[in-house]
Amino acid sequence: MLDVRKYIDAVHAKTPLVHFITNYVTVRDVANMTIASGSSPIMSDDVIDAAQITRVADSLVINIGTLNERTIDGMFAAGREARKLDHIRIFDPVGAGAAELRTETSLRLIDEVGFHVVRGNVSEIKALALGSADTKGVDASVADVVTDENLGELLAFMKEYARSLGCVVAATGAIDLVTDGEHSFAIREGHPMMGRITGSGCMLTGIIGAFTAAAPDVVLEATAAAIAFYGRAGSRAAAKSEELGHGSASFANYLIDEVDLMAADFFDAEVLVDEY
Amino acid sequence: MLDVRKYIDAVHAKTPLVHFITNYVTVRDVANMTIASGSSPIMSDDVIDAAQITRVADSLVINIGTLNERTIDGMFAAGREARKLDHIRIFDPVGAGAAELRTETSLRLIDEVGFHVVRGNVSEIKALALGSADTKGVDASVADVVTDENLGELLAFMKEYARSLGCVVAATGAIDLVTDGEHSFAIREGHPMMGRITGSGCMLTGIIGAFTAAAPDVVLEATAAAIAFYGRAGSRAAAKSEELGHGSASFANYLIDEVDLMAADFFDAEVLVDEY
Amino acid sequence: MLDVRKYIDAVHAKTPLVHFITNYVTVRDVANMTIASGSSPIMSDDVIDAAQITRVADSLVINIGTLNERTIDGMFAAGREARKLDHIRIFDPVGAGAAELRTETSLRLIDEVGFHVVRGNVSEIKALALGSADTKGVDASVADVVTDENLGELLAFMKEYARSLGCVVAATGAIDLVTDGEHSFAIREGHPMMGRITGSGCMLTGIIGAFTAAAPDVVLEATAAAIAFYGRAGSRAAAKSEELGHGSASFANYLIDEVDLMAADFFDAEVLVDEY
Repeated sequence: MLDVRKYIDAVHAKTPLVHFITNYVTVRDVANMTIASGSSPIMSDDVIDAAQITRVADSLVINIGTLNERTIDGMFAAGREARKLDHIRIFDPVGAGAAELRTETSLRLIDEVGFHVVRGNVSEIKALALGSADTKGVDASVADVVTDENLGELLAFMKEYARSLGCVVAATGAIDLVTDGEHSFAIREGHPMMGRITGSGCMLTGIIGAFTAAAPDVVLEATAAAIAFYGRAGSRAAAKSEELGHGSASFANYLIDEVDLMAADFFDAEVLVDEY
Repeated sequence: MLDVRKYIDAVHAKTPLVHFITNYVTVRDVANMTIASGSSPIMSDDVIDAAQITRVADSLVINIGTLNERTIDGMFAAGREARKLDHIRIFDPVGAGAAELRTETSLRLIDEVGFHVVRGNVSEIKALALGSADTKGVDASVADVVTDENLGELLAFMKEYARSLGCVVAATGAIDLVTDGEHSFAIREGHPMMGRITGSGCMLTGIIGAFTAAAPDVVLEATAAAIAFYGRAGSRAAAKSEELGHGSASFANYLIDEVDLMAADFFDAEVLVDEY
Repeated sequence: MLDVRKYIDAVHAKTPLVHFITNYVTVRDVANMTIASGSSPIMSDDVIDAAQITRVADSLVINIGTLNERTIDGMFAAGREARKLDHIRIFDPVGAGAAELRTETSLRLIDEVGFHVVRGNVSEIKALALGSADTKGVDASVADVVTDENLGELLAFMKEYARSLGCVVAATGAIDLVTDGEHSFAIREGHPMMGRITGSGCMLTGIIGAFTAAAPDVVLEATAAAIAFYGRAGSRAAAKSEELGHGSASFANYLIDEVDLMAADFFDAEVLVDEY
């Protein structure tokens, strides 16, 4: 069984420094979420600064949500440095499949940086694995919703992709799937409200950056624990928001609040996870 | 009479993808507001990526709030592509009149991109129409407040400007004016609290980008409906904030909350709009 | 005694325009906080635009949190222009000591721009004064916590640094110290929750930019008043957050709320300040 509490405690024991090269849309929420989870974020994307900053960090999270020529250089510079130093490296291919620059940059980063975890929605993961896509913008296409019916097929596809990359691959959505090609988890936490705000995926990738930095020897389990923990925060935040008659912006705050409160105080609930 | 509900329903029926090249100050709130209104935002400003992303989008919103040499290239690249594809194109000339680069870039964008709607505060609209301005920073100057006394004069001025551009011009403030040079609306919704947060104008421009993408054949009415809807959300959010004894940051959240709640659930109120 | 109310009133009487070249992580919160304090923020970092914008502003705040080659050029261009025009100039050396680019850029900016106030955490201030550092990321290192035991030693160190720069130096933390080399204040306001969100320091620097712009002849006192006022808002926000069972994201909102409410309505409390 996935012991989420163990990973939360590991984060709090280490307070890992997580270096982010990420998009300017959700960066504030990512920073606050990462702090709430028990770690310390630092953002830096300049080609010189990012390579220097990543040296003092425990993990590197690269997110291409608003990539540009200048920050792409920073991603490669920091990514190579982090690889040389054997730091944990996490990738969020926002919008891969929606534009050539995003797909191509993702494939080159995966090749040169060698990530420990690639996390996206199903459309993004398919775009990277197949080199083609249905991605519409930054949201998964309707055809790419994970259900109990297509779960087996999708998981087989992801396992093959994970084996080919030699890393953990996570596709999150209504049901979250995470696999290293051998072992896999299907996580049934979360809430539809998480799709009503910007940064749901980016914030999760940040928590994965914290959890895996604190438990670098069990990257698959740490990633699954991060997803389950974050999903539980989502359903708690949705309940709070609904009870108060609040909407999506308040929900976004309660989502970070719940991670902060659960990380600080308690988390002994059994999460809804199937192990394969 | 302006049927706001019709435009909300159109947005929800289509879930338009709105491409933003916008400033990094308010971008997170713009994204959340655009989602709350029923559409899907994507941000991209790189000269290569922006031209690719805009192809899959339904509308393009350009906001010069933190323009720079690199993103200006992205604005022109995406703007020309969107024009070629006949996508809806919306412009928010933040700070036009406060610095030459902003005024000149605005005038060049208006010329080359050919917007469907230009929305700013009165000072910004005057700066563009007259090539000179009183603009102090990003807020309208005190001399430029719309009142019942100067409404007629200002509207005549805006109608002439709208006719010269061949597009819809909206100047928002205590009273919001919107015109295509022939027909016009004066909207008396909104609340002074909207001036106590950053991004009030940017978020409205985002909603206009969603409403007009969903109703591209009636751009004037869709713009007026977006302004009235957003103004009503503002007064509801202010009432909520005041009732709870909260301040400006909570108000900013309730503003998005109210758009989310009204868009999802109901909106059949008569809005305070005069038609000319 | 430090009369905080006087400086709040001065800000409201003048509504100073504060020009920010700041990081994209906390910029939205900085903007909302600056508005809440009674002033008007404008963000601009392009080398051409920033030099133009700073001309119409009352003060310039430079924050290197996500510096890059392009924005560094903007910092120098605006900084030199603001110096020529004798505008108030404030510096926040985020992450100085954590990477060479940050330390070196800070030292060059201090030299060429000639700031009125330099505000950082103790690790950052030490990095600048000594040219070496323990800084881990953007947070002060554990060795650099201010206590009653080391307060005297640290203040002597800061006074010497302030005299060598000829400006006000502020090191904020559990106890905040601010000095111009002659007179000094130790401020015991604030709350540990302020360390659980991103942007605590950046927002304070913004308020200092507003207070000193409104009272340019008493920069030391205006800086101390800004710190005390902000600290009191922090403890009030923490009380509110705790009472409602909310977490860190809600706290971040209440922090801005309290500045907004206190600035608008009242502030006659005696603040916990020792004068030396």
